[in-house]
Amino acid sequence: MAARSRGGNPCSNSFPLIENSCCARPRNPAASTGFPHYRMETAAAAGCAPKIGFLRVLQHNTRTRYLVKMDLKSVSSNKSFGGYQKVYEHFSPTLQCTMKFGIYLPPGVSENEKCPVLFYLSGLTCTEQNVITKSGFQKYAAQYKIIVVSPDTSPRNCNIPNEDDKWNVGSGASMYVNASQEPWNKHYQMFTYITDELHQLVLKSFPVIQDKISIFGHSMGGHGALLCALLNPGKYKSVSLFAPVCNILNSPTLIDGLKTLIGEEKETLQKWDTTCLVKTYDGPEMEILIHVGSDDEFLTKDLLIDNFVKATNERKDNKIKTTVFLEDGYDHGYYFISTFIEEHFKFHSSKLSL
Amino acid sequence: MAARSRGGNPCSNSFPLIENSCCARPRNPAASTGFPHYRMETAAAAGCAPKIGFLRVLQHNTRTRYLVKMDLKSVSSNKSFGGYQKVYEHFSPTLQCTMKFGIYLPPGVSENEKCPVLFYLSGLTCTEQNVITKSGFQKYAAQYKIIVVSPDTSPRNCNIPNEDDKWNVGSGASMYVNASQEPWNKHYQMFTYITDELHQLVLKSFPVIQDKISIFGHSMGGHGALLCALLNPGKYKSVSLFAPVCNILNSPTLIDGLKTLIGEEKETLQKWDTTCLVKTYDGPEMEILIHVGSDDEFLTKDLLIDNFVKATNERKDNKIKTTVFLEDGYDHGYYFISTFIEEHFKFHSSKLSL
Repeated sequence: MAARSRGGNPCSNSFPLIENSCCARPRNPAASTGFPHYRMETAAAAGCAPKIGFLRVLQHNTRTRYLVKMDLKSVSSNKSFGGYQKVYEHFSPTLQCTMKFGIYLPPGVSENEKCPVLFYLSGLTCTEQNVITKSGFQKYAAQYKIIVVSPDTSPRNCNIPNEDDKWNVGSGASMYVNASQEPWNKHYQMFTYITDELHQLVLKSFPVIQDKISIFGHSMGGHGALLCALLNPGKYKSVSLFAPVCNILNSPTLIDGLKTLIGEEKETLQKWDTTCLVKTYDGPEMEILIHVGSDDEFLTKDLLIDNFVKATNERKDNKIKTTVFLEDGYDHGYYFISTFIEEHFKFHSSKLSL
Repeated sequence: MAARSRGGNPCSNSFPLIENSCCARPRNPAASTGFPHYRMETAAAAGCAPKIGFLRVLQHNTRTRYLVKMDLKSVSSNKSFGGYQKVYEHFSPTLQCTMKFGIYLPPGVSENEKCPVLFYLSGLTCTEQNVITKSGFQKYAAQYKIIVVSPDTSPRNCNIPNEDDKWNVGSGASMYVNASQEPWNKHYQMFTYITDELHQLVLKSFPVIQDKISIFGHSMGGHGALLCALLNPGKYKSVSLFAPVCNILNSPTLIDGLKTLIGEEKETLQKWDTTCLVKTYDGPEMEILIHVGSDDEFLTKDLLIDNFVKATNERKDNKIKTTVFLEDGYDHGYYFISTFIEEHFKFHSSKLSL
């Protein structure tokens, strides 16, 4: 479970293959655009991109005028379903490293036509790229006119010893918590990054309706989305989850990673466990939509959705309503997500339009 | 332009990044399912898969009963939009190597409910994975009840000297022609593989309506799809193309690769050039749908769609009708394809239902 598996799942049946991933010839055919020069030319273009996104956007579409006010560097911009799928890079003071995030801007969005925003948190071993290339969400973000932000799943390149060696702690481990333990605590403050720094950055830099923010996520990103919502009552209009990790304290696969970041103390651990948190949540009423596949191999051992639902049902005030769709025959990957993501946009759109 | 770029485009702004693709730790975060163990477990499952697909399918869905009669090895099977996205592996006598192909089976397909089939040919540096993970076609294949087959783009691992060293000839080069030149001619017979061997294999092994076959493709796969249709009059009910290479003889980027496979003789080269072939095509009337982005950086130099359209217009019999949609602001990659692929399914569905 060390180095090789962390970088992705080359043998996974949900995802592209890396063939012959030897040192002489790193390959990822599935990453191709279908034309070989593309890589070099877009790399060159990215290098020339101005830090102020205004001009860059104007090159494409005069209807999407807005100012990127913060120190954001444009990494890529691709027209998709009438809008633009963009990736930006910025230095994060919270994480003390450079971070990337994806943002989809629906057609017509502008300072005069602001949109709600939906944050998407990805799962273990992912980057900002997974959801933007594989879920097909842009069709629905365009249709419902929702800006979608997809952060990376961890700090990167922090020179922490062994930061790249374990899949459940360190780079790509999608632990959306604030680390208290050395040496992680200097960088691994993902909870604050998502709910505060990146949140404010997006609200200040893009034409977002400031009080219409929602969140969703997948797997450990589902755990993260729940944490964000439960620990920030009222901050998000709606929450939805694909195959979420719901009770990390009882997941044999994940608990060690959490302990590495925040220590072994039971009370502290419970502060980052959503099944524990939901028992004492004291914010506005919350409806949560969950889809999970019946063939998800992590369903019974690591996701533990039943524990979360049981805890919500044991509340007397009916403040949290969770609807779980167990979808026959679906697994844990993006084929599953892409099939049901339209339902999540319908759900969020209905809540964001209130 | 040698080894490194052939494997994909790690810096492309359309596609996932390979970060730190060093020999110690090959990484492809974007290939992840969001959970680290997935790779190992599915690899194990694939290893146990029976060669007869019947039982495997029954495990998932009793409505999709059919027999995989040929010697096909199941590589993966993922439920998607009610159907199954599968990948098979088989030894190809034509290519003298093992090949993979993707096949999407819409919900409900069975020996009692056969479906039309649509072949999709990918472009340079791709495998069967690109379109199945990034285009989002499964939604429309399910909706229109069309089986979709996505072959790999070349023979692989043939022990031909330098087969992996150039992007425009050899592994992944998506030249859908029959090579005549040593040492390529023993393996590189992709035209026969697509139009004969794989074609028959699919028709015999899956519940396909035998006379309802269409084809589409992207970039060099668009060139390939046009070759298949123009050189096999009547074989395909409809043809559609995303950003196709239409006049390879005049593409400075690609002509060298073609010459390596089939030699320098002008007359032979013209037999594999679609702008030349369309002048003498003598089959049934053909309607061709083309989408291409106005920001496609290969539009004027390598795609040369205008040359093809001019050649069709110069025919007096109006036998070939080409409709080209030049889409403002779109580039060459899968964000572009995913935006317009629904239009292609509508087009093929209308032709296949005749």
